[in-house]
Amino acid sequence: MSPDELRALLERVRAGTLDVAAAARSLEALPFAELGYAKVDHHRTLRLGFPEVVLGQGKTAAQIVGIARRLIEAGENVLITRVSEGLAAEVHAELPELRYAPLARVLTHEHRPILLGTSAPVAVVTAGTSDIPVAEEALETLRMCGVPAERVFDVGVAGLHRLLARLDVLSAAPAAIVVAGMEGALPSVIGGLVGTPIVAVPTSVGYGTALSGLTALFGMLTSCASGVTVVNIDNGFGAAAAVVRMLRARNAA
Amino acid sequence: MSPDELRALLERVRAGTLDVAAAARSLEALPFAELGYAKVDHHRTLRLGFPEVVLGQGKTAAQIVGIARRLIEAGENVLITRVSEGLAAEVHAELPELRYAPLARVLTHEHRPILLGTSAPVAVVTAGTSDIPVAEEALETLRMCGVPAERVFDVGVAGLHRLLARLDVLSAAPAAIVVAGMEGALPSVIGGLVGTPIVAVPTSVGYGTALSGLTALFGMLTSCASGVTVVNIDNGFGAAAAVVRMLRARNAA
Amino acid sequence: MSPDELRALLERVRAGTLDVAAAARSLEALPFAELGYAKVDHHRTLRLGFPEVVLGQGKTAAQIVGIARRLIEAGENVLITRVSEGLAAEVHAELPELRYAPLARVLTHEHRPILLGTSAPVAVVTAGTSDIPVAEEALETLRMCGVPAERVFDVGVAGLHRLLARLDVLSAAPAAIVVAGMEGALPSVIGGLVGTPIVAVPTSVGYGTALSGLTALFGMLTSCASGVTVVNIDNGFGAAAAVVRMLRARNAA
Amino acid sequence: MSPDELRALLERVRAGTLDVAAAARSLEALPFAELGYAKVDHHRTLRLGFPEVVLGQGKTAAQIVGIARRLIEAGENVLITRVSEGLAAEVHAELPELRYAPLARVLTHEHRPILLGTSAPVAVVTAGTSDIPVAEEALETLRMCGVPAERVFDVGVAGLHRLLARLDVLSAAPAAIVVAGMEGALPSVIGGLVGTPIVAVPTSVGYGTALSGLTALFGMLTSCASGVTVVNIDNGFGAAAAVVRMLRARNAA
Amino acid sequence: MSPDELRALLERVRAGTLDVAAAARSLEALPFAELGYAKVDHHRTLRLGFPEVVLGQGKTAAQIVGIARRLIEAGENVLITRVSEGLAAEVHAELPELRYAPLARVLTHEHRPILLGTSAPVAVVTAGTSDIPVAEEALETLRMCGVPAERVFDVGVAGLHRLLARLDVLSAAPAAIVVAGMEGALPSVIGGLVGTPIVAVPTSVGYGTALSGLTALFGMLTSCASGVTVVNIDNGFGAAAAVVRMLRARNAA
Amino acid sequence: MSPDELRALLERVRAGTLDVAAAARSLEALPFAELGYAKVDHHRTLRLGFPEVVLGQGKTAAQIVGIARRLIEAGENVLITRVSEGLAAEVHAELPELRYAPLARVLTHEHRPILLGTSAPVAVVTAGTSDIPVAEEALETLRMCGVPAERVFDVGVAGLHRLLARLDVLSAAPAAIVVAGMEGALPSVIGGLVGTPIVAVPTSVGYGTALSGLTALFGMLTSCASGVTVVNIDNGFGAAAAVVRMLRARNAA
Amino acid sequence: MSPDELRALLERVRAGTLDVAAAARSLEALPFAELGYAKVDHHRTLRLGFPEVVLGQGKTAAQIVGIARRLIEAGENVLITRVSEGLAAEVHAELPELRYAPLARVLTHEHRPILLGTSAPVAVVTAGTSDIPVAEEALETLRMCGVPAERVFDVGVAGLHRLLARLDVLSAAPAAIVVAGMEGALPSVIGGLVGTPIVAVPTSVGYGTALSGLTALFGMLTSCASGVTVVNIDNGFGAAAAVVRMLRARNAA
Amino acid sequence: MSPDELRALLERVRAGTLDVAAAARSLEALPFAELGYAKVDHHRTLRLGFPEVVLGQGKTAAQIVGIARRLIEAGENVLITRVSEGLAAEVHAELPELRYAPLARVLTHEHRPILLGTSAPVAVVTAGTSDIPVAEEALETLRMCGVPAERVFDVGVAGLHRLLARLDVLSAAPAAIVVAGMEGALPSVIGGLVGTPIVAVPTSVGYGTALSGLTALFGMLTSCASGVTVVNIDNGFGAAAAVVRMLRARNAA
Repeated sequence: MSPDELRALLERVRAGTLDVAAAARSLEALPFAELGYAKVDHHRTLRLGFPEVVLGQGKTAAQIVGIARRLIEAGENVLITRVSEGLAAEVHAELPELRYAPLARVLTHEHRPILLGTSAPVAVVTAGTSDIPVAEEALETLRMCGVPAERVFDVGVAGLHRLLARLDVLSAAPAAIVVAGMEGALPSVIGGLVGTPIVAVPTSVGYGTALSGLTALFGMLTSCASGVTVVNIDNGFGAAAAVVRMLRARNAA
Repeated sequence: MSPDELRALLERVRAGTLDVAAAARSLEALPFAELGYAKVDHHRTLRLGFPEVVLGQGKTAAQIVGIARRLIEAGENVLITRVSEGLAAEVHAELPELRYAPLARVLTHEHRPILLGTSAPVAVVTAGTSDIPVAEEALETLRMCGVPAERVFDVGVAGLHRLLARLDVLSAAPAAIVVAGMEGALPSVIGGLVGTPIVAVPTSVGYGTALSGLTALFGMLTSCASGVTVVNIDNGFGAAAAVVRMLRARNAA
Repeated sequence: MSPDELRALLERVRAGTLDVAAAARSLEALPFAELGYAKVDHHRTLRLGFPEVVLGQGKTAAQIVGIARRLIEAGENVLITRVSEGLAAEVHAELPELRYAPLARVLTHEHRPILLGTSAPVAVVTAGTSDIPVAEEALETLRMCGVPAERVFDVGVAGLHRLLARLDVLSAAPAAIVVAGMEGALPSVIGGLVGTPIVAVPTSVGYGTALSGLTALFGMLTSCASGVTVVNIDNGFGAAAAVVRMLRARNAA
Repeated sequence: MSPDELRALLERVRAGTLDVAAAARSLEALPFAELGYAKVDHHRTLRLGFPEVVLGQGKTAAQIVGIARRLIEAGENVLITRVSEGLAAEVHAELPELRYAPLARVLTHEHRPILLGTSAPVAVVTAGTSDIPVAEEALETLRMCGVPAERVFDVGVAGLHRLLARLDVLSAAPAAIVVAGMEGALPSVIGGLVGTPIVAVPTSVGYGTALSGLTALFGMLTSCASGVTVVNIDNGFGAAAAVVRMLRARNAA
Repeated sequence: MSPDELRALLERVRAGTLDVAAAARSLEALPFAELGYAKVDHHRTLRLGFPEVVLGQGKTAAQIVGIARRLIEAGENVLITRVSEGLAAEVHAELPELRYAPLARVLTHEHRPILLGTSAPVAVVTAGTSDIPVAEEALETLRMCGVPAERVFDVGVAGLHRLLARLDVLSAAPAAIVVAGMEGALPSVIGGLVGTPIVAVPTSVGYGTALSGLTALFGMLTSCASGVTVVNIDNGFGAAAAVVRMLRARNAA
Repeated sequence: MSPDELRALLERVRAGTLDVAAAARSLEALPFAELGYAKVDHHRTLRLGFPEVVLGQGKTAAQIVGIARRLIEAGENVLITRVSEGLAAEVHAELPELRYAPLARVLTHEHRPILLGTSAPVAVVTAGTSDIPVAEEALETLRMCGVPAERVFDVGVAGLHRLLARLDVLSAAPAAIVVAGMEGALPSVIGGLVGTPIVAVPTSVGYGTALSGLTALFGMLTSCASGVTVVNIDNGFGAAAAVVRMLRARNAA
Repeated sequence: MSPDELRALLERVRAGTLDVAAAARSLEALPFAELGYAKVDHHRTLRLGFPEVVLGQGKTAAQIVGIARRLIEAGENVLITRVSEGLAAEVHAELPELRYAPLARVLTHEHRPILLGTSAPVAVVTAGTSDIPVAEEALETLRMCGVPAERVFDVGVAGLHRLLARLDVLSAAPAAIVVAGMEGALPSVIGGLVGTPIVAVPTSVGYGTALSGLTALFGMLTSCASGVTVVNIDNGFGAAAAVVRMLRARNAA
Repeated sequence: MSPDELRALLERVRAGTLDVAAAARSLEALPFAELGYAKVDHHRTLRLGFPEVVLGQGKTAAQIVGIARRLIEAGENVLITRVSEGLAAEVHAELPELRYAPLARVLTHEHRPILLGTSAPVAVVTAGTSDIPVAEEALETLRMCGVPAERVFDVGVAGLHRLLARLDVLSAAPAAIVVAGMEGALPSVIGGLVGTPIVAVPTSVGYGTALSGLTALFGMLTSCASGVTVVNIDNGFGAAAAVVRMLRARNAA
């Protein structure tokens, strides 16, 4: 509820056209739909600028179907992340309009595309081939928010020339999402080469002292390059959401 | 060295106005000044858009003086972070033109201000009073990069009404730096209320299971609010540098 | 054995109506039934006010059946927690009187309900949909101890208005069990809004830096809200048991 | 702001005795005093039932003095925890009415005592002599909230008979705060002997694998006794605050 | 090779009855049988007093069969630990003389029993039912070394009276093996009650902050009872081996 | 209180020579002296076979003096461990009869020596020179319990010949205490060479990945030599106490 | 691109035989083949002296086939590590010329053997039988680089005589790869006995405090023997690659 | 004792020129000097090729003086590492012939230089200025072993051009020691550019998630560049010792 809406509501109370008890209820409860096991938030698009995103992991197929159906009925777009192939099949049987991207492991429904202002494509970079699924989750999220993007894959620091060949894309991008596992050095190197905003995504790729992504995470956080920010391990969605926040603020300006 | 500069250099080689050996040397070595213990980077401003920043921690007073003097001679601005009061006094004795901000623990020299395009002020938020030094480090960095900022201090989640009273500042800001120790919940809450780009800074404030800031860090990374990004513990400088990247990309667009 | 019982026993020794050897045995061994692999404790209800609770995890079906049968024969209620669906089926085949709650993963047998004094319902709160199984374990435990409860589900901090709409339930409750994974910020926020006793339960919901629930746990322990207490990760039973202790002490007063 | 106050405010708007703009401001901002570096919360006593508590650690003497002075001017009681002897002296020089308890390391000002309903004393238990400072922090907090308490010190599990001699106090208490470092086994043992609500406080007492209190903490959380709850390492204040929540809820009932 | 054997060998060299080259080879290589993937040690019984023990985990069935066959051919007893049911079946098909204890998960072959001097039985204690498999591994090892033992199961600290009823067995034992998971408090309590040598075995029983046995381990190591020693998590074999060392040293004295 | 004493007490009750109330008090409270901040245990020598040991760390000089004075008055020996030089001076000023061993950092008072049966000396072994203080704490403890011991210092695995030269001492000892920091490999090597009971003590010697002794601890616990047991990091006292338990059990047999 | 090649290229620009735009492209992009999901590096052999190595783990069969096919077409040798049996079968169906070593879990294709200068065989040592798969990965890598090697298996520190019998091989080797799990003490012991370059490989063999290889890793890093270097847990390939670097540098000298 | 010496000794026994008892003693005890608190190893130079190195940390000045004096008397070179300025002064007062290098924190005595065969200088590289002390420890060690070296300082990945300007030195070196803190990415980058043997040294430079060097360590171990090996955090000495092993093996070949 925006400050303007608040003032309008109070004016109606003053004018006597709105009952005091009703006004109190309105002030206490912003709109959401109660499903018992979930409260679907219909105002999130207005508030934060991207669709209600559902984390599929840890939910049953029935719960996902229930939430997605409610969103579709409300005319909203749907993005469900971290959906295994088996779970996707179960959900799809109930809601065939959902599209499954197996590499990214997301289910989407594109009812009304959000159109952002035009911009150069966001660079989505990976250090290796095994980091691609996380990058694809980011790419699907960007697509659902109407943000153009370009893939720059397998340019890890053990072969710097592969990276240097693509520096122009990175320099021109309004933001770069840099996905890397193992020692996670790629964002440091890119951060030292270009001034582009960089969101680093550590991945759980690697074994032993890769510590399921913690080593890449900590390496990115202690990066000797200035101004690199980081999201959770394997969180391609979160990195894309951060970029959407940046581009929306920019468009708003 | 930009692609344009590269092409210009090669044209000169082709035209015979540049010697091959000299060109090879140029291509191998971008300009920096060799101090023996440090290589001062005179092109960083062009490349990344902020001054050469010196991490004071772990350097001797003599090393800091040497680096700062070289930068001042080159007509550049200087920002030295994590300088204890004692170390600052030693450096100041040699270079009285440096200004010390004791709360932020930074030394600065403002030779030529970088002027960014005008924007609404960046919000710099703290959960508690003890988080203020980290916020001040961010504020000094923003100041050195010509970015206006506004303080929103002591609005932690244990007293939500203090935060709600300042939501307008947060909504209008082109970006928010949110500094919090202990459980680090504040960025999650703000991220759910406004669509502004948020850079979260965990601090080492707290004891026991605060684990010197790791708990705040992990809490911020697993935030249930979408698109919050994080920097290293107590790294106010890094958060400001990330915001500078965003604003520069925006001005470039 | 209460101090009164001790004195009574000693009086019988003094009066000569109790043999010294028998008295020594009584003093050494309070009553329990020896099953070889387990010692079933028939006096726990008297001592602590809730039924003998069996942790199903790590036990064979035969062991669970043996312990439950002994308790049923003694006329006691039974609560067996952390029973997988497969294990429950095996046990059920032997003891069909046991009831299985699949979401909560508990087996119960309600022979004689414990009736506590009437009170407002305990609030059982979850941050998200994935936290519900842990909340259900708490709810089943409360039910077995005769404590009324009310569900307040999916009110995490990323959508604060959903929580604010239910504050009245939380304020009126004699205690609140707050179940949250990921960054675990919900108990902090609730603890700052109401003065109700709060038992926080971290869950293993989340990935990467959620660290299987450790991040939520540490966040809750470093909560900036005063007087929030915490139990083990995913320990819905333990949180309910803590509330039962509170309500019994209150009824005793 | 309570629901009743909200309704009253809205009635005034409807009646025209309150200006719409003023009402909007009231709804946005609950009362607190802005000190720049801190926002002092004058409604906390009403909301949560205990005084504004100030964590001294990480604050300068000037900041503590500023906050305490504002509270005293508002006629409120003051409790400042984790104040080292040196810091206490600095603060005392400015505000001689504050009383310092060196063992508990707290500063207090008792302007108007909060009187709770009468009850049996809360038991404050320690495993060893080195755990006493944490217990004293809890005792000071209880005192400031008007809760009677009784010391049961140095009754660790390596000499069980010392504990058994004091079981009557533990059984009769409305709640017990059990403070233990090293392996932290004492709450488990007590939790198996009495049905009293137990708040366990791990301490950083011990060396090597005591891991600065983490071992005691984890031991308490995995306690085989049901319904033991835990607070942060060395957090005597938090344990007392939890007990105050319990007793207030009980008095309210 | 004992010092006596060394002297004897050198006397033979001096006397000319042993060739210098042969003596050099003997000194370099104490006897073992080379299998390529393993070197079976035929002198361990003499050196350390228990049979060559084979850790089954991480070995193929073929490797286990090869090692066991070589030992049997040499007339030695065999003890193979950490053998899953499936692996045991594969090995048994080749070597039907091996006996499998499914609870303890060990394979044994008793060719010639080692007879220790008579003693009171060693107490093998568990805190709960789920700790029994680890205790059984210890019991099988003791049996293979001819050491009598007595089971004291399910006497954890949440029901102290169950333990107190068996104190006589613990007092009389030449050593006690105390097996406990979760918070691992049992060895502390027993160590404060009796002066018997205690070898504590943490188990991986428990969830969440039990941390797969690390919490029990650290708790036992920081035990406030003096002189409790600890072995690796779930290492029933190691605890028994420690007791065998004690009893052999005692018999030697 | 032994079972015999229990029976005697009950006989007196039956015979009417002991009052019931007095008997109840006796049963509830085994003898200890209450100092307020500590409960001094006068029966520990009988129960566990070594003197009341006081952990100096974390206690004030006044508390140590109070406890030591009470023990001296009761005619008991005193052993106070982990006493820094400064603290020792403060205590000594009050109780000049206490003797300080600066390397071992213990205060002792030898009023009546405990005489154990004669045995070969216990071997106290260190890997390096820096491990000696921990070994000396063990040696002082053994001395206070009347156990002869022999030093075998600086025989770490990087120079195996130094160890092999002293194997005879290790073989003949009734037990060996092996003190090692860094990688903690020495107990593994010794455990493979001799059948002697081995108590390993990890030390905090080393830097970086030595992790303040955790690496040595974990290495010792995963030792590939059978039957090595371990105590807490730097816990020389605990290792000695474990050996005393062994020798007392042996003498009792 | 070598400095010589760079000069040659620039000469061609000067001479006008190379177009400026083409030269710029060459300078930006050293040769690699773009597969979309991977960039195959055809110059690695020249640059680093071993074939392009593919980490199989985390890649699909289709991706591995694509990369391997490209390398085979380019006439290069292929080494693919960490390939499970199932994945190997899938790849083999497409590329039957690849050879699978099941113990080492690698796929290789030997098109043109790299011949190093002759040397004594590299010693590949294991502490136990379970460490052999890691050693075999190293051996396959050495074979693909033309380096002779000798197996010294199952010589762990619990039976030192087995090691001493093979010291001659270790002394003569140009380098030793020492593979050990559990406490990882073997490299320390070998490092104290011979002056050979030692690359230590910790393995994930062991349970409990072996911590999946971290204990062996940390033990090796804190080794009291000088000059032992370490690679990642289970990284047999990496150890072999380190040895190849040494031998190539030696041949180059 | 070499195999040849062993055979010679045995020949003397056979010839009767050496007494059996004396021979046994020789075989048991290779030469070292017993100081009580340390055993100085006079044969290490022969065995491992570098002088007896003394870790100063954790030793008293008296112990260091005692060990150094014994080595000097034996005509050996001395290298004492990790000596603080204060400790160095104390030692120097007793042994003025020792030379102190304050940046490297080592004491040396160069009695007879070890001369290795000539080679190109070893490259000693640092990422930043704060890593220099660790590099200097390596340089002092190399100097004491007669190995030429060249400094390549402050070439971290945030300014890659500084590194690329020095690639020729790295390519030509027989080995490179790469010292880096923070995210520790430098060895990965260098390992991808040159085929030189690389020993990586993580440093404790950095704060927060640098985790006192663990992040750099883990990053180096999971390096995506093949064949990089690692030593302990801040262990400049160990890296140099590893290089000495390589160069000695190479000279021996």
